[in-house]
Amino acid sequence: MSLAYGRPYLAIPGPSTMPDRVLAAMHRPAPNIYAGEIVDMLAGIKPDLRRVARTTQNVAIYIANGHGTWEAANANLFSRGDRALVLATGRFGLGWAESARAMGVDVEVIDFGLSHPADPARLEAALRADTDRRIRAVLVSHVDTATSIRNDIPALRAAMDAAGHPALLAVDAIASLGCDVMEMDLWGVDVLVSASQKGLMVPPGLGFLWISDRALAACHGSDLRTPYWDWERRVGAAEFWQNFCGTAPTHHLFGLRESLTMILDEEGIEAVWARHARLSAAVWAAFETWGIAGAGAGCDIALNVADRRYRAASVTAARIGGGGAERLRAWCEAEAGVTLGIGLGMAEPRSPAFGDFLRVAHMGHVSAHMTLGVLSVMEAGLQALGITHGAGGLAAAAAEIARGGQVGGQAGGQAGGGQAAE
Amino acid sequence: MSLAYGRPYLAIPGPSTMPDRVLAAMHRPAPNIYAGEIVDMLAGIKPDLRRVARTTQNVAIYIANGHGTWEAANANLFSRGDRALVLATGRFGLGWAESARAMGVDVEVIDFGLSHPADPARLEAALRADTDRRIRAVLVSHVDTATSIRNDIPALRAAMDAAGHPALLAVDAIASLGCDVMEMDLWGVDVLVSASQKGLMVPPGLGFLWISDRALAACHGSDLRTPYWDWERRVGAAEFWQNFCGTAPTHHLFGLRESLTMILDEEGIEAVWARHARLSAAVWAAFETWGIAGAGAGCDIALNVADRRYRAASVTAARIGGGGAERLRAWCEAEAGVTLGIGLGMAEPRSPAFGDFLRVAHMGHVSAHMTLGVLSVMEAGLQALGITHGAGGLAAAAAEIARGGQVGGQAGGQAGGGQAAE
Amino acid sequence: MSLAYGRPYLAIPGPSTMPDRVLAAMHRPAPNIYAGEIVDMLAGIKPDLRRVARTTQNVAIYIANGHGTWEAANANLFSRGDRALVLATGRFGLGWAESARAMGVDVEVIDFGLSHPADPARLEAALRADTDRRIRAVLVSHVDTATSIRNDIPALRAAMDAAGHPALLAVDAIASLGCDVMEMDLWGVDVLVSASQKGLMVPPGLGFLWISDRALAACHGSDLRTPYWDWERRVGAAEFWQNFCGTAPTHHLFGLRESLTMILDEEGIEAVWARHARLSAAVWAAFETWGIAGAGAGCDIALNVADRRYRAASVTAARIGGGGAERLRAWCEAEAGVTLGIGLGMAEPRSPAFGDFLRVAHMGHVSAHMTLGVLSVMEAGLQALGITHGAGGLAAAAAEIARGGQVGGQAGGQAGGGQAAE
Amino acid sequence: MSLAYGRPYLAIPGPSTMPDRVLAAMHRPAPNIYAGEIVDMLAGIKPDLRRVARTTQNVAIYIANGHGTWEAANANLFSRGDRALVLATGRFGLGWAESARAMGVDVEVIDFGLSHPADPARLEAALRADTDRRIRAVLVSHVDTATSIRNDIPALRAAMDAAGHPALLAVDAIASLGCDVMEMDLWGVDVLVSASQKGLMVPPGLGFLWISDRALAACHGSDLRTPYWDWERRVGAAEFWQNFCGTAPTHHLFGLRESLTMILDEEGIEAVWARHARLSAAVWAAFETWGIAGAGAGCDIALNVADRRYRAASVTAARIGGGGAERLRAWCEAEAGVTLGIGLGMAEPRSPAFGDFLRVAHMGHVSAHMTLGVLSVMEAGLQALGITHGAGGLAAAAAEIARGGQVGGQAGGQAGGGQAAE
Repeated sequence: MSLAYGRPYLAIPGPSTMPDRVLAAMHRPAPNIYAGEIVDMLAGIKPDLRRVARTTQNVAIYIANGHGTWEAANANLFSRGDRALVLATGRFGLGWAESARAMGVDVEVIDFGLSHPADPARLEAALRADTDRRIRAVLVSHVDTATSIRNDIPALRAAMDAAGHPALLAVDAIASLGCDVMEMDLWGVDVLVSASQKGLMVPPGLGFLWISDRALAACHGSDLRTPYWDWERRVGAAEFWQNFCGTAPTHHLFGLRESLTMILDEEGIEAVWARHARLSAAVWAAFETWGIAGAGAGCDIALNVADRRYRAASVTAARIGGGGAERLRAWCEAEAGVTLGIGLGMAEPRSPAFGDFLRVAHMGHVSAHMTLGVLSVMEAGLQALGITHGAGGLAAAAAEIARGGQVGGQAGGQAGGGQAAE
Repeated sequence: MSLAYGRPYLAIPGPSTMPDRVLAAMHRPAPNIYAGEIVDMLAGIKPDLRRVARTTQNVAIYIANGHGTWEAANANLFSRGDRALVLATGRFGLGWAESARAMGVDVEVIDFGLSHPADPARLEAALRADTDRRIRAVLVSHVDTATSIRNDIPALRAAMDAAGHPALLAVDAIASLGCDVMEMDLWGVDVLVSASQKGLMVPPGLGFLWISDRALAACHGSDLRTPYWDWERRVGAAEFWQNFCGTAPTHHLFGLRESLTMILDEEGIEAVWARHARLSAAVWAAFETWGIAGAGAGCDIALNVADRRYRAASVTAARIGGGGAERLRAWCEAEAGVTLGIGLGMAEPRSPAFGDFLRVAHMGHVSAHMTLGVLSVMEAGLQALGITHGAGGLAAAAAEIARGGQVGGQAGGQAGGGQAAE
Repeated sequence: MSLAYGRPYLAIPGPSTMPDRVLAAMHRPAPNIYAGEIVDMLAGIKPDLRRVARTTQNVAIYIANGHGTWEAANANLFSRGDRALVLATGRFGLGWAESARAMGVDVEVIDFGLSHPADPARLEAALRADTDRRIRAVLVSHVDTATSIRNDIPALRAAMDAAGHPALLAVDAIASLGCDVMEMDLWGVDVLVSASQKGLMVPPGLGFLWISDRALAACHGSDLRTPYWDWERRVGAAEFWQNFCGTAPTHHLFGLRESLTMILDEEGIEAVWARHARLSAAVWAAFETWGIAGAGAGCDIALNVADRRYRAASVTAARIGGGGAERLRAWCEAEAGVTLGIGLGMAEPRSPAFGDFLRVAHMGHVSAHMTLGVLSVMEAGLQALGITHGAGGLAAAAAEIARGGQVGGQAGGQAGGGQAAE
Repeated sequence: MSLAYGRPYLAIPGPSTMPDRVLAAMHRPAPNIYAGEIVDMLAGIKPDLRRVARTTQNVAIYIANGHGTWEAANANLFSRGDRALVLATGRFGLGWAESARAMGVDVEVIDFGLSHPADPARLEAALRADTDRRIRAVLVSHVDTATSIRNDIPALRAAMDAAGHPALLAVDAIASLGCDVMEMDLWGVDVLVSASQKGLMVPPGLGFLWISDRALAACHGSDLRTPYWDWERRVGAAEFWQNFCGTAPTHHLFGLRESLTMILDEEGIEAVWARHARLSAAVWAAFETWGIAGAGAGCDIALNVADRRYRAASVTAARIGGGGAERLRAWCEAEAGVTLGIGLGMAEPRSPAFGDFLRVAHMGHVSAHMTLGVLSVMEAGLQALGITHGAGGLAAAAAEIARGGQVGGQAGGQAGGGQAAE
C-alpha cells in the first residue's frame, strides 16, 4: 500500500507544473504555417514576451533549451577571443561560462561559492582592473537553479555603472522569469536569457532572448554568430518562418499563448511575483522551524542561503545531513506522490555528501494547496524516517499562507492570528 | 494577489479528482459501435466491475447519474404497492426513499438522524414486526455522502438473517465504492447501487447495479420496470447495444476501462481501500486536534461522526460553528485554490446554521500530497480567519501519513517517530 | 500493406465525427457542481438548446441515450392505457412504439414500410376515425436513422389540424437535429426528442426533450412519470442539480457548450443545414451515377429513398445487391480507413440479404473533404471488388460540391462548369 | 455557407497530419527528468530512430527545427574554410548551402534546376576535378520539399565511389524519412539529417542526425562545433541530460515514442513506404489525367517532375497556370476545408507566376480516405473555378487505390477492374 497513488506531484525546479490549459492548447492538429491563426498569434506573443520581462526592447524566440539559449546569447555577444566576465553562484553560472569558453570566448570567472550571492564590490573592482576594456559582457544568473541563490541585479548594474565600464550586462533568468521580480529595462539589463519550462509553464523546447537596443547595435558584427543563433535575423524577421529560422514550433507557441494570457491578463505579472514570494516564504518558514533545534539536538537541516534577501522565489535548496535529503526524497516519492529535486553541484554526484542536499521547487503554476502539500509530505517523511527536526514547521508555513490571505496580499499587523488554543 | 492560482483542487465529495489518464482515454474520436474495439472492451469491463464490488454475480450499466440508478433499482425491485423499508442516515438515504415513494412504492423510513449509523437491532425489530412479509426490500446507504456516516452492512445483514425475513438487501454504495471496503457477496448484499464519479474516478454519467442471482429471480415480474431500467435486458444482453438499451456511452466506457485497470490491476482494490483508510485517518487526526481545545476556549470544531467505526473513508463531514465552515470554505477557495464541500442536509440551506457545516472529500485519485495539502490550507484559513482551533493539527495528520509509510501500511508500534526536537 | 493507416474515418450514423474542440472541452478536471462555472454555463446552454430546435418554449436535459429519451417522452406524454398513434418508417419508429407499449401505453402503429415517408392522408384518416379522441399523441421520426427516410413534419401537422384532432405531435429528431431543417415552433411540434451524439457532435450520453407549453400543460397529470423522467421537475428546476435529477453530466455539458457555440454562433444553424443539404446531394449524385447502368448491365446499386424530397440530409441508406454492400464495407474499412454503417432493419441480421444494405453518414462535423473522401474510397472499393457501377460517380459528386461554392451556396446558372476537356 | 466546416484538413508538406495518439501522448504533466519513465524511454527511442533510418550506427537528437539540424550537421562536418559540394534541386538544397556558407564553409553549388534530379555524372566529374581533395562533404537533399524532386541517393553514392573521392555523403531526409524508402547503411550515407514534423508525425521542434562511424571519426576535430551542436557529446552521452545538452524535450519525446511505435511496430516501416508510394501514385494519376488535355484545349496543369522515378512519395509539386494554383488553393481552403501547400522557390513570391504553383502533401499519417478526399476537393474546385482540366481524374486516382487493395499491395494485371458500365 502506498499513499503515492493519486495525481503525482513534481516539485523539481523545472520542468514545472504546467496548467491543464497549456497542455490542452497544445493538443490540436497542426496549423498552416504560411498564413492564418498561428501567424496572427505570433503578433501578440512577441509584445507579451516583452511584458513578462518588463522591457520595450527586442525579443527573439529559439527552438532550443536553456543551454541552447546560452549559446545563442554567446554567439551574438562575442567574437572569437572577446573576453567575458562570469559571476558564478552555482553550477549553472559555471555552465554558461563553460559554454562561452568552448565557443572560443576568453572567459574570466569570479566564483562566489555555493551559498552567497555575487558581490557588487568585487564586480566593480574587476571592471576597474580591466583598463583596456577587453571585457565585452558580464554574465550572471539571476537565480542559479542549483543553489537557489538570487543575485541582486540592480546592485550589480550599479557596480558596472560605478566602474564606468561599457561591458554589456547579460542575465540568465531561466529559473526566475515569471517567479521573481524582473525589470529588464528598469534594471539596465542588456541581454536577458530564459526558457519555457519554468515560470512560463510550458514544456521544455523554447528559449528566449531579450536584447536591449544597445546590445543589438553593439553586437552587430560578432563573428561567432551562425544563421540559427543570429538574433538580428529573428528580431528583424520579415516573414513568419524567419522568426524561427525555419519551421515554427507550432505546438509550443499554442501553449505559450495560453500561458502568457494566464500570467499577464488573468493573474497579472505583479500578482504572480507576489504569489511566488509568499509561497517561498512558507517553504522557508517550514525549513527554518525544522532546522531550529540546532546541532545540540542533532538536527542537521538548513536552507542553503542564509540571508533571505538572496533566496529565490522559485526554488529552495536545502541540506538535510547524514544522507537525510536523499532518504527523504525517496520516501516522498514512494510513499506520498511527491518528487523533490536532487541537489545539484553541491557535492560530487556519487559521493556520500550528495545525499545531503535537495531542492524544493515552487515555480510556475503553484498554489498554496500544492506547496503546503509538499511541505506536509516532507514533514510526514521526516517523522517516518526518524530524522530529527524542530516541531511546528507546518504550522509556521501555514501562518505564512494565512498572512497572504490579507487584503492586498500584504501582511497586516495583527492579521491572521487564528488563536491556537492549547 | 491570491495563492489560489495554480492547479485548482476540488475536495468535494464527487465528482472526485479524476486521473489524467482517465480523461486522456476519453479524448478520442468516436468508435464504431457495431464491432471492434469498444465491443471487445466491454467484455473485460463487466468482469472488472464485478471485481471492484467483490461479486461473481450480475452487473448492469446505465447511462444515468446516481438518482437514475436508484430509480433503476426501484423499478426492478418493486411492483406498485410493494413495501420498502428504508434505513436513513442522511439526506441521500431519504432521497432514495422519496424516489421509491414517488414511483408508487409503499415506503417506511426509519430515520437514525444525522450523526449515527443505522441500528441493526431496530432493523431486526422492524422486520420481525412485518409478520405478513410485506417488506420486499431493505434500502440503506453504505455511506451517506451528506453525513459521512458509514453503515455497518454485515451487521445489518445479520439482523435481517436473525429476523428470518426474506426481504432483499439493497445498498447504495455511490459514495463508498472504490474507497471503503465493500464485499458484496461475502456480506450478502442483494442489490448494490453505484455510479462513476466518486471512487471510480470517471466523470458523472454512468450508474451501475450489481444484482444477486436471488434478486434477479425474485424480481422477475416487477411491474414498475420499463425497458430502459429493466435490468434483465441488460444483464442478458445478446447484442452490444442491449447492454445500454440503445447507443453505448462510448467515451465513458473508455474512461471506465482506464480507471478499472488502475484500481484493479495496478494499485489493487485492497491497497485502494487501505490508502483511503489512511488518508481519512489523517483528516480525522487534524480535525480532532483542531477541535480538542473544547468549549472552554471557545473552540467549536467537531467531526460529525463521533465513533470512528462509522466514519466513511471517502468523505468527512464536520462542524465549524458560528458560520466558520462557510467562511473557511470561502477562504480556501479564494485564497488557496481548494474547494471544500458544503454541508448537505445538516441545516436548512438558507438558515444561519447552514454555514456551520462543511465536508472534505478524500475519495478516488487522492494521494498523501493532495489530502495533506487540503488540511494545510484549512489550517492556514483557520489562522487567517481567526477561528479558534487547537494547535498541532497538521503535525498530527502528518503523523498518520508517516505511519502509513511503514511496511505493509500497518501502523507499527513505535514506528515513525521522527524525533521532534523542541 | 493497407491504405487504412492514417486517421480512421467513421461514417456511421452516430456517434458522429466530433470536433476536436468538443473533445478538448471535455478534457478537464471536474468542476464544482454547487456554484461557479458550470452553473453559470447552464444558464446559456438552455437558451441555446432552444435556438438549435427553433423554439422559445421549454427544454429538459437528460443523462440518457436516445432510447432513454423516448422513455422520458413516453413517461410524460402518457398515463397507463392512453393511446399512442405511431407512424413508422423504419426500425427506430418501431422502436419508439415498442418502448411505449412496454410502458403500458396502448399503441397503434401505421407502418409505411422501409422506403416511403409517412402519408399525411393516412394520418388524417386515422385521426378522423378516432372519434372518441382516445389518441393522446402522434409519434413520428423526423428522420429514421435506419432507412434514412425524412418525414414531412409540416405536412403531418397539417393533416392533424385538418382532422381537428387534439392529439399532441411528438417528433424524434435524434438523427436529424443539427443536420436537417427543424422549426419546432413554426411547424407546431409539441414534443421534440433528440440526443447528443449526431448533429450535436457530442459523445453519446445526453438526451433532450423540447416541450411546448401546450404539452407541458396537457401532460401535467400523466401517471407514467417517475422522478427521473418527469420533465416538470427539470423544466422548473430551482436548483442546479434539479435540472438533472441529481449529479450533473459535467463533462458532457462542457462538450455541449462548445458544440452549441460552433453551431449557433460561428457557423450559424441555417448554414449548418445548407451544408448538410449540399453534402447529402453529393452523396446522392455519386450513388445515382453508380446506379445508372441499371439492371441491364447487371448493376444493382440504388438509394433506398427514390424521392429526394424524403431523403435525410444526415444519413443515406442504400442497396448494393449480391452482398456488395457488405463486401464494400469490409474493403473500405480494411483498405482505406473508412467505416461505413451497416444496414439496419432492412433485412434479417443473419440473412444473406443483410449484406445488401449499407448506410453512409454525413452528419455533424463534416466537410466537403470528409464526405468526398468517403465517396472516393467507396468508388475505389467498387473497382477493387469488381462491383459493376456506372462511371463518373465521383465527378458528379464533385460537381455538387463545386456548385456549393457559389455565392449564397445556391447553384448559379452557368456557375462552376470547369470545362472538362476530353 | 461553406462546406469547409468540419474537421479542417492540412495538406501542406509539413507539419503533417499527426495521429491523435501522438498528440494524446504529449498531453500529460511534466515528468521527472533525472530518473524514471522518460529516462528509460530514451533507451528505446534511440534504437528505434536507427531502425527508421535503417542504420546500426549513431544517432543524435536535437531540440531544433530542420534549419537547426542543417547547422548541426555543418558544425560537425566542417572546419572553417573546408569545402562543401552541394547538389541543389530546389530551395531547400540551396538553403543548406547558404547555411554552410554563412558558417564559414567554402561552398560550391551544382544547381540542377527545379524539375530534374541531381545528375550522378556531373557529381563524379566534379569530384574527379577536385584533385587536391578539398571537398570534405557532398550535401544533397533526398527530397527537396519545394520541388518534390527525389534524388537517387544510391546512384550519387556510386558516382562518389567511382570517382574514388573520400568526401562524406550527407543527405537531407527531412521531407522523406518515414515516407520514401531510406536505407542509410545500405546506400552508404554518412550523415543523415531529418526532423520530427513530416514523416515522423510529431510536432515541429525535434531534429535528428544519424552519423556513420566513418563520419564520426573523420569529423572529430572540426572547429565549427559548439557545445550545443557537437554530435560527439550527444552520441556519447553518459547522463540523460547530455543527450540534449540540457533539459530534455520531454513532451516531444512522449510524442516521438508513440509515433515510432506506430511506424515500426504496428504498421512496419516497409508498409509505411508502400502506403506512401500508393497514395502518391493516386495523386499523380489525378494530375496526369487533369493535365492530359494539353495545350490544345487550353489546359495548363502539370506535375513538376516529369519522370516518375524522381518524384517524392511524400509531396507533389505541380503547376496550374494562369494563377490557377493560387485560386484553387484559396477555393479549397474557403469552401471545402482543405489547405494545400503554396509553391516554394518556383517563382518570385510576389510575382504573378507565384500563383501558378502549389504542392499537395501526402506524408505521414495519411490514409486513402484523406488523400482521395484532397483530390476530390481539388476537382470540385477546378469545376467551380472553371479551370480547364481533363475528365476522369478522380476515377483514375481511385483506380490506383483500388489496385493498392490487392495482395501484397502490388498492382496485379487485370486486378480490380470494377466494370464501369457506361
